[in-house]
Amino acid sequence: MEILNTIHSPADVRALPEDRLDALCAEIREFLVQSLSVTGGHLSSNLGVVELTVALHRVFDTETDRLVFDVGHQCYVHKLLTGRREAFDTLRRLDGISGFPKPVESVHDAFIAGHASNSISVALGMARARRELGGDYRVVALLGDGALTGGLAYEGLADAGESGENLIVVLNDNGMSIGPNVGGIARLLSHARMRPGYLRFKRAYRRFFRRWPTLYAFNHRIKERLKGSLLGSNMFEEMGFYYLGPVDGHDCAEVERILRFARELDVPVLVHVLTEKGHGCSFAQAQPNVYHGVGSYEPETGALPEKAPDFSSVFGDALVELAQTDKRIFAITAAMESGTGLSGFAEQFPDRFFDVGIAEGHAAAMAAGLAKQGAVPVFAVYSCFLQRAYDMLIHDCALQKLHVVFCVDRAGLVGRDGETHHGVFDVSYLSSVPGLTLLSPASFAELREMLRIAVTELSGPVAIRYPRGGEGEYTEDRARKACSVLREGTDITLVSYGTMINEVLSAAEQLSWAGISAEVLKLGLIRPLDAEPVLDSVRKSGALLVAEEVCAAGSVGEALAAALAKNGVTAKLRLLSLGNGIVPQGSVAELRARCGMDSVSIAHTARELLGETVCQK
Amino acid sequence: MEILNTIHSPADVRALPEDRLDALCAEIREFLVQSLSVTGGHLSSNLGVVELTVALHRVFDTETDRLVFDVGHQCYVHKLLTGRREAFDTLRRLDGISGFPKPVESVHDAFIAGHASNSISVALGMARARRELGGDYRVVALLGDGALTGGLAYEGLADAGESGENLIVVLNDNGMSIGPNVGGIARLLSHARMRPGYLRFKRAYRRFFRRWPTLYAFNHRIKERLKGSLLGSNMFEEMGFYYLGPVDGHDCAEVERILRFARELDVPVLVHVLTEKGHGCSFAQAQPNVYHGVGSYEPETGALPEKAPDFSSVFGDALVELAQTDKRIFAITAAMESGTGLSGFAEQFPDRFFDVGIAEGHAAAMAAGLAKQGAVPVFAVYSCFLQRAYDMLIHDCALQKLHVVFCVDRAGLVGRDGETHHGVFDVSYLSSVPGLTLLSPASFAELREMLRIAVTELSGPVAIRYPRGGEGEYTEDRARKACSVLREGTDITLVSYGTMINEVLSAAEQLSWAGISAEVLKLGLIRPLDAEPVLDSVRKSGALLVAEEVCAAGSVGEALAAALAKNGVTAKLRLLSLGNGIVPQGSVAELRARCGMDSVSIAHTARELLGETVCQK
Repeated sequence: MEILNTIHSPADVRALPEDRLDALCAEIREFLVQSLSVTGGHLSSNLGVVELTVALHRVFDTETDRLVFDVGHQCYVHKLLTGRREAFDTLRRLDGISGFPKPVESVHDAFIAGHASNSISVALGMARARRELGGDYRVVALLGDGALTGGLAYEGLADAGESGENLIVVLNDNGMSIGPNVGGIARLLSHARMRPGYLRFKRAYRRFFRRWPTLYAFNHRIKERLKGSLLGSNMFEEMGFYYLGPVDGHDCAEVERILRFARELDVPVLVHVLTEKGHGCSFAQAQPNVYHGVGSYEPETGALPEKAPDFSSVFGDALVELAQTDKRIFAITAAMESGTGLSGFAEQFPDRFFDVGIAEGHAAAMAAGLAKQGAVPVFAVYSCFLQRAYDMLIHDCALQKLHVVFCVDRAGLVGRDGETHHGVFDVSYLSSVPGLTLLSPASFAELREMLRIAVTELSGPVAIRYPRGGEGEYTEDRARKACSVLREGTDITLVSYGTMINEVLSAAEQLSWAGISAEVLKLGLIRPLDAEPVLDSVRKSGALLVAEEVCAAGSVGEALAAALAKNGVTAKLRLLSLGNGIVPQGSVAELRARCGMDSVSIAHTARELLGETVCQK
Repeated sequence: MEILNTIHSPADVRALPEDRLDALCAEIREFLVQSLSVTGGHLSSNLGVVELTVALHRVFDTETDRLVFDVGHQCYVHKLLTGRREAFDTLRRLDGISGFPKPVESVHDAFIAGHASNSISVALGMARARRELGGDYRVVALLGDGALTGGLAYEGLADAGESGENLIVVLNDNGMSIGPNVGGIARLLSHARMRPGYLRFKRAYRRFFRRWPTLYAFNHRIKERLKGSLLGSNMFEEMGFYYLGPVDGHDCAEVERILRFARELDVPVLVHVLTEKGHGCSFAQAQPNVYHGVGSYEPETGALPEKAPDFSSVFGDALVELAQTDKRIFAITAAMESGTGLSGFAEQFPDRFFDVGIAEGHAAAMAAGLAKQGAVPVFAVYSCFLQRAYDMLIHDCALQKLHVVFCVDRAGLVGRDGETHHGVFDVSYLSSVPGLTLLSPASFAELREMLRIAVTELSGPVAIRYPRGGEGEYTEDRARKACSVLREGTDITLVSYGTMINEVLSAAEQLSWAGISAEVLKLGLIRPLDAEPVLDSVRKSGALLVAEEVCAAGSVGEALAAALAKNGVTAKLRLLSLGNGIVPQGSVAELRARCGMDSVSIAHTARELLGETVCQK
């Protein structure tokens, strides 16, 4: 790491002679492969943007210039070059550096980025603020071609292109979803434009014609018509962008040259950069999706530890089984085929499987169309990304009582992806959807059975929420019970749902050591909520503690508390949730402890609630 | 109405000789202008689609074929032709026919439509269900060019184009936002395609080459390259659609011809139809936006009753005043400049005003970019459409604590637009957004002051929610009080916020006639909620009734009930809200009465709660 060790800030990158850049890039790759083999993280995408990121830092000064990442997990190289190399062993750890850009972490991180397709919108807002409020900085959005599949990116492109604002969109195209025109005819265009002198000519031409606007407009129309018929044009140009590229994203000097060129233009520019995911690392290059987001691995061979079954894979297997005898079942994912456990389904039922790209809104509306004509669509989606389809849940699915099944993966704390990815809002926003049934399995067996119930027995919109990772001690199946008593007791009622029930069961055990008899109730059906069994228990125990891995507003605890009040049941009451703040990154166990939701904290809180004097934790 | 009176079903339209169509269209226009002059409704857009709708019904049988409207307020002609002429005097009235397509109303209404840009997604879902589950029907999505500005439409186009499914997208282009390529070069293309014999040739060509797939593919590539360079191509073709048009949308025969042609193709087809909003009615043609959605008017001249000030106009004027001295203020709308009261702002501060099209997600993310660089963006948006930006509220605004002001218009019941447009979810979904401040003015004066506070004093995301229409009896300004006691009392505590406070004040007055002393509390600050003043009052009165025009889950009433339970305050309790069902159309007064939220019902419920024997309403 001879060169990398001398890079303490982007100024050092800029000072480096051009002939050292390839060596620097090689060192960065080596560093990433080694470092992530221990911490885990997003390997493939970062290996793909090494040269691009180095070039960006040579052309722009991210201390003032605003580099807006999209999705953002390809920001590791950026973090390496902006003074955070030493912190890489804390990557995605509790209190460590984030795996995503984070303005509170560094002045070089212009904006938060965890959900896709927003970067052009954000960059446009920044450019508009600059125009009115002043400021000498450039605005650059960096997005992958995957992010372009989201309608939000299209909305941003349309507005930015129309606006004429000075901003640069760098399209990091690793070959997924761009139309043929961009690759083909546009190449001609880019050559025409990159000819020396073209820019100078263009400027003089504009200056000349500015004095006769009508003549300019007429001439411009003729020219565009001509250019269109001779060279074709692409979507970006139609939308008002000055298109540059495509350029080889692994040729540092070439990328730097095109970025310098883009920097001089005073219009919306799109720079098209071709990169390869996993570039320069044989195993990541061969299987970029496997090394997209990984835990630890063997750095020489890429060998991965055996994967234990998790809720996603259990869901996927169960859906395949159901689909074998029920041809009404369709599966939908928004660019998360493997993450949601649908790879097996995709293989066995390609005609009934749809990966719609990063387009959750479309996925939900398309599912509604399927359901309207008699199909049973199952949309598997991460809790935090389903937020994008909130309106379609209400408008397209619920108002017509359509039978769409939402399998809400990564519900609750997700761990190291941190604040942008925690699935802590779904209970709240799903509760407001008219007529939606919300189920919460606590074990693999319950997930299997609830999926069967959701698909074959229920009607209207249904959501099943389950967490990242595996089940805990509780492995039984009470899928058909809205509320189950897992442990009888007389002193306090503990209520929870999902895998959090394991912490609560453990807390009840700890309480028993202190002579406190806790009754543990597990909810399987969250909405519509039947509070009666809980009220019955509380009438007996006189104390209620609800523990759940969601935000406080609209939580089950609030609903149960309201039910107590409505029914005139008085009790000592404590609602444990993640509050209305923002939950950081860390392992789920660490975060539960920090948020006071591990078994020890729950037992401690229960004793406090019962008026016991307990020593400080 | 000589011809129209003979049309009882689409079969009658199909049976009509071609030479009677123009006369039918003229009668339809006459009918619409007369009928809507009494009921109000969407005039301009329906006048624009008369010939198009007639042609659609001559080519497709909507009893089995699925015609999916987008936004849907241009469905009046469709309703007229599908047996609902007699019901037009009940249009948008309580228990009358809806101003939007509604499957429960007629088999001819394939899908609900109130929010924009979803039709392609829905149609694609239907086409996919047909392919797997069988069925002999066509699927047609009908969308306006405005709907194309939404990213959801782009997501739908991309997936539909890629899918190759047999479906037809009819683009009703009344000249707003389509790129130049579509209008220009595409015209050439359409001529080439519409030549007689072209389809026959194309079919024979395909049949011939099907035997040699490789040769076909090679030939196809050459042909496409050639076509591209000779004729250009447009975005729709790049996305995989077979493009037809543009065609004059007021030439019934021509539209019918192109639709018949489209019907024979077995691929995704886009039919581009040029129409004029307000066509055939001089005043609507001259000012299509004024007659987009109107109340009653004078049918000869289009003269409209004087417009009283409403919350939207008060907001607009107040924002202009603030912006005069504070250049950090930017205003954003998603295609609702006039509806949200921003026309004055747009005129006075064109550089700080942005209409982004029907793109609420982009609007929120763009606002976040503005805020990050020091601007104070104010996004004025209808409550039901802000649902589209729920994720951006959390991810782009709240996680970074950015100071974006959301002015949430049409909050609560909106009246005649009905179930798709009621703003009844915002209190629930806004409550879950971390760190968001939610304000609720009850008068014009409070809106003005709260806007000032939101813009100049608060930080982080702020939302101000206010209803459609004007203020009531209550016109005072208690904007700076989180909770105000409007009336002191001892027997029961009545809590509300927004203009609903007028019903509650009136209920309190009615209660006093019965000797019941009600204390009335008005909340100005909804989130974060300070329950203390309410608890204080309830501790005194022993009874609490909360009345609010929102859905039950996540309501303020639920939060207050939970606060009672948490604080061990026992009280008789009644929460009045719109529940978790779907609220129909009707005037706000009618709906309040039906939902038990008018003053009489509130007084009645309060007496019941206090254990009085009251006669049945």
